[in-house]
Amino acid sequence: MDSNWIDISTPVHPGMPLWPGDPGLNFTRVMDQESGDICTLTQASLSAHTGTHMDAPLHFVRKSATMESWPIEATVGPARVIRIANPTAIHRDELLQHSIQPGERILFRTANSDRDWGKLPFDENFVFIAKDAAEYLAECGIRSVGVDYLSVGGFHQDIVETHVALLGNGIWIMEGLVLNAIEPGDYELVCLPLKWVNAEGAPSRAILRRVVTA
Amino acid sequence: MDSNWIDISTPVHPGMPLWPGDPGLNFTRVMDQESGDICTLTQASLSAHTGTHMDAPLHFVRKSATMESWPIEATVGPARVIRIANPTAIHRDELLQHSIQPGERILFRTANSDRDWGKLPFDENFVFIAKDAAEYLAECGIRSVGVDYLSVGGFHQDIVETHVALLGNGIWIMEGLVLNAIEPGDYELVCLPLKWVNAEGAPSRAILRRVVTA
Repeated sequence: MDSNWIDISTPVHPGMPLWPGDPGLNFTRVMDQESGDICTLTQASLSAHTGTHMDAPLHFVRKSATMESWPIEATVGPARVIRIANPTAIHRDELLQHSIQPGERILFRTANSDRDWGKLPFDENFVFIAKDAAEYLAECGIRSVGVDYLSVGGFHQDIVETHVALLGNGIWIMEGLVLNAIEPGDYELVCLPLKWVNAEGAPSRAILRRVVTA
Repeated sequence: MDSNWIDISTPVHPGMPLWPGDPGLNFTRVMDQESGDICTLTQASLSAHTGTHMDAPLHFVRKSATMESWPIEATVGPARVIRIANPTAIHRDELLQHSIQPGERILFRTANSDRDWGKLPFDENFVFIAKDAAEYLAECGIRSVGVDYLSVGGFHQDIVETHVALLGNGIWIMEGLVLNAIEPGDYELVCLPLKWVNAEGAPSRAILRRVVTA
């Protein structure tokens, strides 16, 4: 491996945008060298869906797989970044032109990434995967999908439908990716979620590296 | 990338061994489809040093670097797994035979990995990096070091000295790795910590792949 990896994870800090109603994020220094302790030590309280994270099937599908059953191949390997033109939602009609193949790992770079969303308040009108596009991705048989905001489904529509169409068909979901600097094309993706047992999601870290074709 | 990656991360669950005195681990389902909610959602409370995790310099060195300044190259790239024979501690004399080079990423597979430590109570007598070995690793100028228990320093000795010798010399630390199935030799390592701003450590996920030489 060379060193051309790009971090596509959002910084986790109080004040970052969180899904409305989700538990807040708190960091507490339970030990601090500045107060005379031998070391500095942080305790965190956070939702599994804070910042860059993954959803397991259990998030929206009862009695289904949890995070510790995540297969490494789901989000480690070749991936494609697709630029979405529609400024409102990702729809099947736009995806048809991209020749999506079975087993692909697909990341959508939308208008969400035109702004530094990780530093702004939560935006209810983020670009999301509409139900028709989610069902199309399931028909295509992709392996995993990543989006550049906090949910694959919309705030006002398709939140349940899109999650169910993806998770119910074995597609692992990456959310909260930072794709502002990422051009469309072929990459190597490494997205690693924490190994939280019996959880429906987990905070994750993701990096990308451009595939240079000869 | 092929699919021969091996997970070297310990499962995170209540009942796992934690450093004595550290904040406990709690998972709470704040939403649950089994109770009629539209989805299932977990909130977690945990120490930055739970299970597989990384230490940033600030953990033991005042006014020093925090997790968000982690350089990808510190723990992503070629790495070497060294088998340690000493059943008590890693000492300089044993390391001398391994020709450790500047810039190396080194993982130590010790007797800790003879047991499935992630399922057992905390063991105060785990194999650790003694001060003399930590100072030697700093002299060698390695880039990062990983161990197969919850701390590079010992419970009864060298806890401060070993952390300071490593972190004070710019060596990033991976702790809580699961190396039971790992033979000594050359690997590709990907260890990704959560991007926790202003924190002295962060939970991480790590995978390893054998380098096959022709």
